[in-house]
Amino acid sequence: MTTIHAYAVKEAGGALEPFEYQVGPLGHDEVEIDVTSCGICHSDISMIDNEWGMTEYPLVPGHEITGTIAAIGAGVDRLKVGQTVGLGWSSGSCMTCHQCMSGDHNLCGDNEGTIVGRHGGFADKVRCQKAWAIPLPDGIDPKKAGPLFCGGLTVFNPIVQFDVRPTHRVGVVGIGGLGHLALQFLNKWGCEVTAFTSSASKAEEAKSLGAHKIINSRSDSELTDAAGSFDFILSTVAVTLDWEKYFAALSQRGRLHVVGAALEPIPAAAFPLIAGQKSLSGSPIGSPATAATMLEFCARHDIEATTEHFPMSDVNEALDHLRAGNAKYRIVLDRT
Amino acid sequence: MTTIHAYAVKEAGGALEPFEYQVGPLGHDEVEIDVTSCGICHSDISMIDNEWGMTEYPLVPGHEITGTIAAIGAGVDRLKVGQTVGLGWSSGSCMTCHQCMSGDHNLCGDNEGTIVGRHGGFADKVRCQKAWAIPLPDGIDPKKAGPLFCGGLTVFNPIVQFDVRPTHRVGVVGIGGLGHLALQFLNKWGCEVTAFTSSASKAEEAKSLGAHKIINSRSDSELTDAAGSFDFILSTVAVTLDWEKYFAALSQRGRLHVVGAALEPIPAAAFPLIAGQKSLSGSPIGSPATAATMLEFCARHDIEATTEHFPMSDVNEALDHLRAGNAKYRIVLDRT
Repeated sequence: MTTIHAYAVKEAGGALEPFEYQVGPLGHDEVEIDVTSCGICHSDISMIDNEWGMTEYPLVPGHEITGTIAAIGAGVDRLKVGQTVGLGWSSGSCMTCHQCMSGDHNLCGDNEGTIVGRHGGFADKVRCQKAWAIPLPDGIDPKKAGPLFCGGLTVFNPIVQFDVRPTHRVGVVGIGGLGHLALQFLNKWGCEVTAFTSSASKAEEAKSLGAHKIINSRSDSELTDAAGSFDFILSTVAVTLDWEKYFAALSQRGRLHVVGAALEPIPAAAFPLIAGQKSLSGSPIGSPATAATMLEFCARHDIEATTEHFPMSDVNEALDHLRAGNAKYRIVLDRT
Repeated sequence: MTTIHAYAVKEAGGALEPFEYQVGPLGHDEVEIDVTSCGICHSDISMIDNEWGMTEYPLVPGHEITGTIAAIGAGVDRLKVGQTVGLGWSSGSCMTCHQCMSGDHNLCGDNEGTIVGRHGGFADKVRCQKAWAIPLPDGIDPKKAGPLFCGGLTVFNPIVQFDVRPTHRVGVVGIGGLGHLALQFLNKWGCEVTAFTSSASKAEEAKSLGAHKIINSRSDSELTDAAGSFDFILSTVAVTLDWEKYFAALSQRGRLHVVGAALEPIPAAAFPLIAGQKSLSGSPIGSPATAATMLEFCARHDIEATTEHFPMSDVNEALDHLRAGNAKYRIVLDRT
């Protein structure tokens, strides 16, 4: 038996407390990771608060993990003890369904969430299925890479899946943990990048992250003037927008893509979709292969999250900082 | 001056009456067509009734036209007098904008509707820009081909634009003028085809048109059981559906595509879109190139509209028949 030293929440919205749990022998296809760092994602807070009704307490949050392989199961061949890896929202999939066999492990119906019914990365160790421990290529700083595995992959994935092209004019709605990475990806992808932000203070930062243009999303006139401008708009926010204006901001063949799950349905009027051959879509975290592609792209283009660091023992202070809306742009908990 | 003998409506919802109008010299890039036949589309009724607020009276409806070229403008080179052609919803586009220059003439902002601010095919003659008069290949019966140019092209276009593949499981909602052609296209495209119909009497006909399976769209249990089944669902109806169930009926990566413009917005919940990487989209009539591709496909696979024929002089009886919901599946007005 191995004892894992972690931080867990015992009830919805509670503070995190030191927590130990024991795990048995490592599975055939599993790896055990010594955690180096773990980013904090908004969905950690959603799970801490049981916003989605699927939290099991005690819960060890944390799903933006980097670390080194501490042990490998008997069936693990391509990963070695001591290797640096990352682990994100998903920690396992069935590996046999049509989705898995097509490379869409992220769409597997039995996809296992790292913090859904099991314990995550606010801990000294975490385990996962071998496929979901993604080796970090040279040039990626493990201390700053955790946020790539959830926030980063969530916005990189649709760029790949929906064939965003370097000639496209693209918009990013919400310049936070996800959006600040999307700006960097899309800039290096070759696109003309516009940041939609309601915060004037973020305009200069958005430009430094890769935005060529800024639209104040609180300005009716700026949104209206943008009509017909965008091939692809990526919404990273989980709030209700003035959707009609965003559909109107798309050019012919344009796509409005959401990765933030607003609770109210998006009212999509058929006529503008039809007249402009427009699409609305969504996507979850990416597959292991897409994660590896993302890391290569980040290494080639010096893309990294803008991070603030807290010792993991200060996890409650770090969560308060995030809840207060002060994170710029991603908080990472460091074990050392 | 040429006098055109037509049937026009003088006020919203009125009966059609014999009507003559005069046209001047043929434009440089125009052709004049001697009308052989003209299908009646639901959008003719929408225009007769001014449902969309864009009708100018008197209006000569009719935009599913076949005929022979009677005269050509000085700039017309590839079409010859006497050639058999078809003309659909669009009769012109700017030919210089980015959309036109990309082959997306159907998405041109200045696209001209055959019966929008001008006169259509319930007449002995009609004119259009040369690009929109599409030659009929051998094997296409001009008497039955009119409906291909609006109803047919509207459902063929998304199959091409959104990369429907022969391995896909597809559904068609609404087995009418558009749907009965969509079933034929998708069957010959190689897909597994399901017809969604609320009319038990149409089930056998849908099978004879190419459906492999039938879902009773009024059956909650049949819709619910279909969850996760479809790569592509094409809705040809302009009414509000139980959209949540149709989104659920999509498999991962699935697309719900609408060509019928329901007036109420479609409420698209973000979470299912995200979890399943699903899309909602719409599209208008296709381009001239897509129309030509469709005609080749129809000739190769013996696809044609199921038509009922009326002499053009009985246009009011024909419209009553359509309004009563009795058309199976497309009414065509014949001049001879």
